[in-house]
Amino acid sequence: MNGTATLWWNKEAGSLCYIDQTSLPEKYRVVECRSVGRLVKAIGRLEIRGAPALGVAGAYGVALAAHVCPKKNIDAFLSDVSRDAEILRVTRPTAVNLGWGIDRVLQKIASADSITSARLLALGEAEAIAHEDTACCHAIGQKGADLLHDKTTLLTHCNAGALACSSWGTALGVVRSAIESGKKVNVFACETRPLLQGSRLTAWELIRDGIDVTVITDSAAAYLMRKHIIDAVLVGADRITRDVVFNKIGTYMHAVCARYHDIPFYVAAPLSTFDKQKREQDVIIEERNREEVTRMGIRCVVPDAARVKNYAFDATPMDLVTAIITERGVLHAPVNIDSVLSMKNIR
Amino acid sequence: MNGTATLWWNKEAGSLCYIDQTSLPEKYRVVECRSVGRLVKAIGRLEIRGAPALGVAGAYGVALAAHVCPKKNIDAFLSDVSRDAEILRVTRPTAVNLGWGIDRVLQKIASADSITSARLLALGEAEAIAHEDTACCHAIGQKGADLLHDKTTLLTHCNAGALACSSWGTALGVVRSAIESGKKVNVFACETRPLLQGSRLTAWELIRDGIDVTVITDSAAAYLMRKHIIDAVLVGADRITRDVVFNKIGTYMHAVCARYHDIPFYVAAPLSTFDKQKREQDVIIEERNREEVTRMGIRCVVPDAARVKNYAFDATPMDLVTAIITERGVLHAPVNIDSVLSMKNIR
Repeated sequence: MNGTATLWWNKEAGSLCYIDQTSLPEKYRVVECRSVGRLVKAIGRLEIRGAPALGVAGAYGVALAAHVCPKKNIDAFLSDVSRDAEILRVTRPTAVNLGWGIDRVLQKIASADSITSARLLALGEAEAIAHEDTACCHAIGQKGADLLHDKTTLLTHCNAGALACSSWGTALGVVRSAIESGKKVNVFACETRPLLQGSRLTAWELIRDGIDVTVITDSAAAYLMRKHIIDAVLVGADRITRDVVFNKIGTYMHAVCARYHDIPFYVAAPLSTFDKQKREQDVIIEERNREEVTRMGIRCVVPDAARVKNYAFDATPMDLVTAIITERGVLHAPVNIDSVLSMKNIR
Repeated sequence: MNGTATLWWNKEAGSLCYIDQTSLPEKYRVVECRSVGRLVKAIGRLEIRGAPALGVAGAYGVALAAHVCPKKNIDAFLSDVSRDAEILRVTRPTAVNLGWGIDRVLQKIASADSITSARLLALGEAEAIAHEDTACCHAIGQKGADLLHDKTTLLTHCNAGALACSSWGTALGVVRSAIESGKKVNVFACETRPLLQGSRLTAWELIRDGIDVTVITDSAAAYLMRKHIIDAVLVGADRITRDVVFNKIGTYMHAVCARYHDIPFYVAAPLSTFDKQKREQDVIIEERNREEVTRMGIRCVVPDAARVKNYAFDATPMDLVTAIITERGVLHAPVNIDSVLSMKNIR
């Protein structure tokens, strides 16, 4: 069980390799990306997705720009790499991690005195970011694993797995660490309409690691709780403010139903997901295009004249959260995110 | 606004016409059915669906069998019609309404003394059943309309509309009657995975009547409740026992979330849906094939090795139900289905 590396540097070929997430689960396709232009396309088309994975992709993107830049003069070289980095940065302006990964590598090479040195520094920093991300997921995994009982059936939503990170995963990292520690865990994966990251990606990466996974439609989750099949809900997070957890649309429904059935509701997320400056009302929920809901293959399943409301995320209030699992420890209810830094409340 | 007749007899052509529900919403296609064999195929392929509609289809099916039977002798004629009726009956063995409609027409023609008389009696009984069904929906509609405030936003799930009945609908009949009485009502239709009866059928028939409808994914419903967008949930029912309401998978989730948000949860269903003999534990929830979940057009969106759990229905306990709207009156909480017959509790 290695939690499926999502993207990695191919030293021999001098290329960035990644799993094309749009073709899963039907086709496991590794793309060898040899230009920043191709990487821009990959991120735009969601071939690479998931906030932590985008941070790593941004970092490797700058390393790739440095690797292929033909300039012989260090100043011209750095200028070209910076220009490529800016093209990469705007591909998904809402993903803070992308810019964060790019900036860390740019900063590292800013004072390089030779092109060879700049290339080595860029690649080294990108590799460091990827390893840090994986280490962070393992730390989350271990801390979360301690929370789970042996013989646990978890419900998860969307993909907070290896494919959303450099590897291992946040919520699915907890599943992997628990199983590695000898606990028996099986997973119900909600398909996660409209883009099906649950059925396509979560099921795929768990199957690949030999983990027992059952796909259900999102609306069946509550009924499984009623039948006492689910022991806990475990999801990732896109942003955690003082008052709510933002995550894939549907997360809130699971939190409400978990509370009604007296089932724990766990969130697994790195500290980089915490946003202490904002509250729910300050964050705009992204509404995506209607075609995600209306198109089913080549079929149109919604009449043209009908409205469609397609929120990408929802907000779950902190009082429905049993615990947030971070790489530094577990925040138990009542969750107070100030304790993330002071760590007073973290056990 | 006429609530889209779903199936009807074409007197000139001597055929049973129906809307093919598998091709909606992309194509409005009326099939002229001239043989029992074609009708058997139509029901098997879900071209006609919905319990009340199946009762009407069974009745018209026997009338069609009588209409096309070439026999000249009354005994041979009745024997042929009965044989056709049995072929029709087993098409969907779980739909009680189908057999009920068939039996009513068979009984009507059993003592006919001529073929002409039998054909007239069969068609007359089938037309009577269709009209009774429509009248029942209008009665449900009017009684339900009184429950709704002006300027109401309803959430519905699956299709409890004209397409599931002979016309008008049960839950959507309430919407139509409320609007006809001058109330302003708009509807959020949950798409209803996996077969999308909400986005394909409910949205289509409401648009056709000029009713404001917005399609959402099933898992977005709770978040709309949190945003105070939904005033009430209104669904149909497949079977109502003493303790629970069986309806399309996802109904229970809406009931739990409605309770959490203090929103009324209404069920609209004819008295024929009530089953006083059974309790939840006595009824087996149909599990349908995995391909409904794994196939998206030509794509396979679930890995072959993953399990799939595909319940067609769920059960909502009576204590989550605010009221059940029947053609004879409204059963308010605490709902006691014994009062359906005694009508003591019906206001």
